[in-house]
Amino acid sequence: MAKLTSRATDYSKWYNELVVSADLAENSAVRGCMVIKPYGYAIWEKMQAQLDKMFKETGHQNAYFPLFVPKSMFEAEEKNAEGFAKECAVVTHYRLKNDPENAGKLIVDSDAKLEEELVVRPTSEAIIWSTYKNWIQSYRDLPILINQWANVVRWEMRTRLFLRTTEFLWQEGHTAHATKQEAIDETVQMLHVYADFAENYMKLPVVKGVKTDSERFAGAEDTYCIEALMQDGKALQAGTSHFLGQNFANAFDVKFTNKDGQQEYVWATSWGVSTRLMGALIMAHSDDHGLVLPSTLAPIQVVIIPIYFNDEQKNQIDETANHIVNQLKEKGISVKYDNDDKQKPGWKFAEYELKGVPVRIGLGPRDLEKGQAEVARRDNLSKEFLPIANLSDDIPLLLEDIDASIFEKALEFRNSHITEVNSWEEFQQVLEEKGGFLSAHWDGTAETEEKIKELTKATIRCIPLDAQNENGKCILSGNESSKRVLFAKAY
Amino acid sequence: MAKLTSRATDYSKWYNELVVSADLAENSAVRGCMVIKPYGYAIWEKMQAQLDKMFKETGHQNAYFPLFVPKSMFEAEEKNAEGFAKECAVVTHYRLKNDPENAGKLIVDSDAKLEEELVVRPTSEAIIWSTYKNWIQSYRDLPILINQWANVVRWEMRTRLFLRTTEFLWQEGHTAHATKQEAIDETVQMLHVYADFAENYMKLPVVKGVKTDSERFAGAEDTYCIEALMQDGKALQAGTSHFLGQNFANAFDVKFTNKDGQQEYVWATSWGVSTRLMGALIMAHSDDHGLVLPSTLAPIQVVIIPIYFNDEQKNQIDETANHIVNQLKEKGISVKYDNDDKQKPGWKFAEYELKGVPVRIGLGPRDLEKGQAEVARRDNLSKEFLPIANLSDDIPLLLEDIDASIFEKALEFRNSHITEVNSWEEFQQVLEEKGGFLSAHWDGTAETEEKIKELTKATIRCIPLDAQNENGKCILSGNESSKRVLFAKAY
Repeated sequence: MAKLTSRATDYSKWYNELVVSADLAENSAVRGCMVIKPYGYAIWEKMQAQLDKMFKETGHQNAYFPLFVPKSMFEAEEKNAEGFAKECAVVTHYRLKNDPENAGKLIVDSDAKLEEELVVRPTSEAIIWSTYKNWIQSYRDLPILINQWANVVRWEMRTRLFLRTTEFLWQEGHTAHATKQEAIDETVQMLHVYADFAENYMKLPVVKGVKTDSERFAGAEDTYCIEALMQDGKALQAGTSHFLGQNFANAFDVKFTNKDGQQEYVWATSWGVSTRLMGALIMAHSDDHGLVLPSTLAPIQVVIIPIYFNDEQKNQIDETANHIVNQLKEKGISVKYDNDDKQKPGWKFAEYELKGVPVRIGLGPRDLEKGQAEVARRDNLSKEFLPIANLSDDIPLLLEDIDASIFEKALEFRNSHITEVNSWEEFQQVLEEKGGFLSAHWDGTAETEEKIKELTKATIRCIPLDAQNENGKCILSGNESSKRVLFAKAY
Repeated sequence: MAKLTSRATDYSKWYNELVVSADLAENSAVRGCMVIKPYGYAIWEKMQAQLDKMFKETGHQNAYFPLFVPKSMFEAEEKNAEGFAKECAVVTHYRLKNDPENAGKLIVDSDAKLEEELVVRPTSEAIIWSTYKNWIQSYRDLPILINQWANVVRWEMRTRLFLRTTEFLWQEGHTAHATKQEAIDETVQMLHVYADFAENYMKLPVVKGVKTDSERFAGAEDTYCIEALMQDGKALQAGTSHFLGQNFANAFDVKFTNKDGQQEYVWATSWGVSTRLMGALIMAHSDDHGLVLPSTLAPIQVVIIPIYFNDEQKNQIDETANHIVNQLKEKGISVKYDNDDKQKPGWKFAEYELKGVPVRIGLGPRDLEKGQAEVARRDNLSKEFLPIANLSDDIPLLLEDIDASIFEKALEFRNSHITEVNSWEEFQQVLEEKGGFLSAHWDGTAETEEKIKELTKATIRCIPLDAQNENGKCILSGNESSKRVLFAKAY
């Protein structure tokens, strides 16, 4: 195994190498599309299972809507259409035929041109709201609380594994409500669900906030977001929840009869997280040895590796190891005993380090004699000897401790990288030398926001939900401001 | 609620009405694509969960491959390409732009034409084997045992909800092996997994068999299948498992170094089931009142409906019902207490009958006095009074009994609809008057098979794996035959 480029040398290269060498994903032969490999997909499945549980606990049901959106439907909500039109894959034909000039080759059959082109969904508001129109007549039909797990396509010019790919996997919630307040409450509720998931399962601290007008989802009235910080000081938008107002109800003429017998347009939300979370998880915690995973999302939580020099030793270790495996499995821990004799222990140690398995248990003949095992933590690479007899009690506690430490470390890093800056000079200097979130006053105009982006590449990540009222001067224009916002360079 | 058309009146109409009125799925605004509604999707999720478990227990892992297949890759395996070319959705452009002649409308941007067209996957052998090429060098890299849950698109001219749709959801397993025998064993193993799932979870008896040359999957050496019988006497192919030989390894030049250091082409299988299984489940068991679901796949296994005339009664029933709910939940039963007072009990009875909830418990004031509840089975519509105190013991047994009965009924129907026929006259008569599977001798030629299809619309569903050797004469040509095959009209 070749060593990874270190984070300090080239963070971006480190990330790309790590994703590939830890068998998480790779680029495919299709421009901008990735192959998610089994180990990466296993992590995504754990994310899905937990999120799905949280969605269902908050009253949502899953459903499935078509991959294709007819162009006329796609363009109905103008802002949404405008926002996505430039990155749409378009299906124009429904048949291939033999190439008469090239045996064994196929060409598009020009006789099979669609009357109306189909857009491969970049997001599903249009197709879903055209469907909801038929489902909603009265207030009794509301709310509709639906989520969909699906693939979407956005034709990105510059792609990176997990972080920005032409096709990606995600979930998109689409809800319909009788009142504005109920829709806003739903939007905020789902933001909290995402923050809860990020902090308690990904062990990733996030800032909850609202996007500025220019960073808002196309077609939304308000976009709420959770923003995380990566180890290189760049921010990453980890999830968004949109209050869509009555925009889609207007576009698709979706009205309901309220309790007073009057017709009103329906209120909407949508919210989503994607395989981008994989990128966030990887970049937030991992180190120069490889992945670091919290036990909450690790496909393998504990690996046991035998160290032996002859068959008799191997048999003894097998017996002890299998006993430990059974005890841990009873506690609901996913454990792998790797007694494959084609690889040496040293190779295995490095392999499971690379793959981020939270706990490694080493078992040698001497350990057995002493009734102890060498237990190594992946997060801080520390090792200790623990009595074999106590492992089934000690390991669950150790996993909890590892998860808490991973979160604490990320939280400390994040908190130490939110810097209050009060002048343009300071802004530039901190952004350049330290990175992270810059908490600064802004005059509230799109012009200033755009100018700061042009000058520094920093964008307003969000107006934090817990931002305090504080009078100040915009760091660029010097105009009045009533609260600080968070700037950062971002993925 | 309007009554369903009866099966006897118009089976096809009954099916279409049932799918829509039981809230399983509906046609979308996109030609041939369906919307899977929450109740239908909940059944599909239960199918997925069980199949996924069975795939993992047999050593498979999930992964994800791109939605798009470049045309040059798609055409590499010629037979596969030929088989699917006529039903491919093709992406030719990656951008829309404003229509200069029509404000607010979009048109395809002709400047954004792809150099190479992308086919929306109708199946993923091509994209997956072009990926496997990079994963396989030595026998140590084999076997590869991967499954994918995905959407696929086949441009069908005549579509029906679940049974045949342009886009559908499925799983596709794609495995790579060092030897022919290992690949054949995998193909057969997965056929047995499908049969096990169909019989034990869908409660649907199936015939395991092999397809004839003309019914084989495009690009396969052998296609194994499970065939089920619907209540109208038509057969439905419920799952297929393909031995692909070295066809895709040849097409994509995928070789491995064997233990003797020699290069060999890799052996392949693929296998899949789809949302078509929903159609099979619905058509196999349901009746003129609505869906009939086995408890193994029912999103709600038990519904409790209160019958009361005043608030005091309601409160008493609520208390008892909540107690029953908790007891049943402890036993792992999914139970719903429907005390919504916007609907009358009679409406609820019909609604849950339509939705196929296996057991309905009715609770009225008199029942409470007597310590009993009215328990109704959905499968045979029988009712009995059971002591409330014993429900937590009785209901699990009742659900088992219902599941067994549903299977038995379907098995009896299927077995009584496999008819041995020995002449062309008999063949036509039984096909016309009774339907079902016709067990008949066939001379083994594609010509005869084709002619029978033309004359009667019946196709050879499979050569059953357990077919006995028996000398006979082909029912059409009179030529020699050594075993019977199963004919039927099919979905």
